[in-house]
Amino acid sequence: MTATDSNLQILLDSRPEGLPEDSNFKTTRGDIPTPGDGQILARNIYLSLDPAMRGWMTDRKSYIEPVQLGDVMRGLTVAEVVDSKADGFAPGDLVSGALGWQSYALAEPKELQKLPGGLPLPLFLGPLGMTGLTAYFGLLDIGQPKEGETVLVSAAAGAVGSVVGQIAKIKGCRVVGLAGTDDKCAWLKEMGFDATVNYKTAEDLRKAIYKACPNGVDVYFDNVGGEILDIALGLLNQGARIPLCGAISQYNATEPVPGPYNYLSLLVNRARLEGFIVFDYRRRYPEALQQLGQWVAEGKIEGRYDIVQGLENAPQALLKLFDGSNTGKLIVQIGDEPA
Amino acid sequence: MTATDSNLQILLDSRPEGLPEDSNFKTTRGDIPTPGDGQILARNIYLSLDPAMRGWMTDRKSYIEPVQLGDVMRGLTVAEVVDSKADGFAPGDLVSGALGWQSYALAEPKELQKLPGGLPLPLFLGPLGMTGLTAYFGLLDIGQPKEGETVLVSAAAGAVGSVVGQIAKIKGCRVVGLAGTDDKCAWLKEMGFDATVNYKTAEDLRKAIYKACPNGVDVYFDNVGGEILDIALGLLNQGARIPLCGAISQYNATEPVPGPYNYLSLLVNRARLEGFIVFDYRRRYPEALQQLGQWVAEGKIEGRYDIVQGLENAPQALLKLFDGSNTGKLIVQIGDEPA
Repeated sequence: MTATDSNLQILLDSRPEGLPEDSNFKTTRGDIPTPGDGQILARNIYLSLDPAMRGWMTDRKSYIEPVQLGDVMRGLTVAEVVDSKADGFAPGDLVSGALGWQSYALAEPKELQKLPGGLPLPLFLGPLGMTGLTAYFGLLDIGQPKEGETVLVSAAAGAVGSVVGQIAKIKGCRVVGLAGTDDKCAWLKEMGFDATVNYKTAEDLRKAIYKACPNGVDVYFDNVGGEILDIALGLLNQGARIPLCGAISQYNATEPVPGPYNYLSLLVNRARLEGFIVFDYRRRYPEALQQLGQWVAEGKIEGRYDIVQGLENAPQALLKLFDGSNTGKLIVQIGDEPA
Repeated sequence: MTATDSNLQILLDSRPEGLPEDSNFKTTRGDIPTPGDGQILARNIYLSLDPAMRGWMTDRKSYIEPVQLGDVMRGLTVAEVVDSKADGFAPGDLVSGALGWQSYALAEPKELQKLPGGLPLPLFLGPLGMTGLTAYFGLLDIGQPKEGETVLVSAAAGAVGSVVGQIAKIKGCRVVGLAGTDDKCAWLKEMGFDATVNYKTAEDLRKAIYKACPNGVDVYFDNVGGEILDIALGLLNQGARIPLCGAISQYNATEPVPGPYNYLSLLVNRARLEGFIVFDYRRRYPEALQQLGQWVAEGKIEGRYDIVQGLENAPQALLKLFDGSNTGKLIVQIGDEPA
């Protein structure tokens, strides 16, 4: 698939205004680096594409430094160790880490997680990766769903939303998912969602969501912001929780976007809107991964993947997140899986 | 001051669009009612005027039923029992309750709290009343301030804000207050606020608030919404809390008001915006009143009062809350204090 005698890299070349464009990226090809003492050389196999990447491209104070111009674009990958001068890592080991938009990367042991064998590798960028962890901590720690409550999820067919909904079902909640195609909605139903709304085709979106949530909303897991957040605010039950995971509807805005008009519903309903960042839960990843792994093994959580071939297609593929044309976890295959 | 041989009442006559007007109220004069079995007749002395009243005048689902057209306008009062056919209440007893905009009211025992003697009566509509309780639970339960943290308070010279700031000082916080006149700011300084900003005269409000909060904001107690909420969001430290107490800047709006543009700061900073209603803490009022009473006795919490004479002036007086021309707790004196 990729030439193995050079290192293809995609750098951030300029900062986007609005939607990212090809011209914001620069493709280079260089030598495969050689690991120094304590370093590992990894060959990237799968690259995760995530809405958060849009934020990393903007030079603004945030929870993480922006990617610097001229640097390799940041991204989580699943990779194979091909050379190691660090204890505990050997060629053939499978790892994950923030190894970036490139065919090969050098890393230190603390930057890598070793992956168990015998499971499909995309799982480690989906339910058993950062998106699964985001769903786990955001829903359970911030959302605190209780049996019988209604959990509403936006971008429900996305990498995070689909896991949120499945965990909420495991916890005995009524789960309502919003997605942008009938095919996505059908998949949500297959996974056990109690109701779905196609937000792109609903005649009256507010009415459709209200109808899908006859008992109001106790937890609204917000991936999108915008109009849907406002509608959800209007449905809150007393003491409701809104884990604030993202706001993909406005990541590419070039003008200031009004916040939720209906935010005083939080006051009237003694409700909570709370942001979180998965990295803060670092120390609890093992607990979460064990639980998620068990649910996956039991067939209670499944992932769906949209795998685009070839690192050179990553800039275009990223746009699928913003027009909703991916279903499930969007991944770029950079290199072949190990034989 | 008021004729004692009739019952002056102010009714809600129509629902305001924007600022309430005299024409929204109707004044009537009727007979003083006679208590039936189990009832108490109380003579109102002081009526609390509160921003929340604007919400009660609007026919919209909220945390409490709106006042019905033709009903006596709702309001908390301090009153004297003048006749009682209920156990445990006798003429001369001082009580508080939601006895409304009228000179006399009938009530049942469960609607009244008995007040201790020997203290200035306005205290029971201020630091030892619902506004003090609102400050107490909003700051301590929702805001959870820790020693050394920065607490920013809007409408800081108001009935709730001034108590919030004083409690935050007791808890060892750096306290920054926003108010609309230099006189109010001077009073805040007297009470021990570390910094103040006159939001009406500041040349660059954002810059002035940033300068007053060099270490960012850990708790923003929001009474006002609007631009100030957006500025505060820009100052949040990681894990910050925003108790959402009110949004007086928009209570009289006749068009939808955009929510906080900067709400994604909650995500980036893992922060929380949480509404609360003091009535939910009913069972813990005794604990809070004991603590507040101790602080008042120790001189650590003081109240300031803006007392308007005469129930007939209540509709006009209410407007002072919306143009900020009151300092401290706004009260209407309906009847004389007991001799």
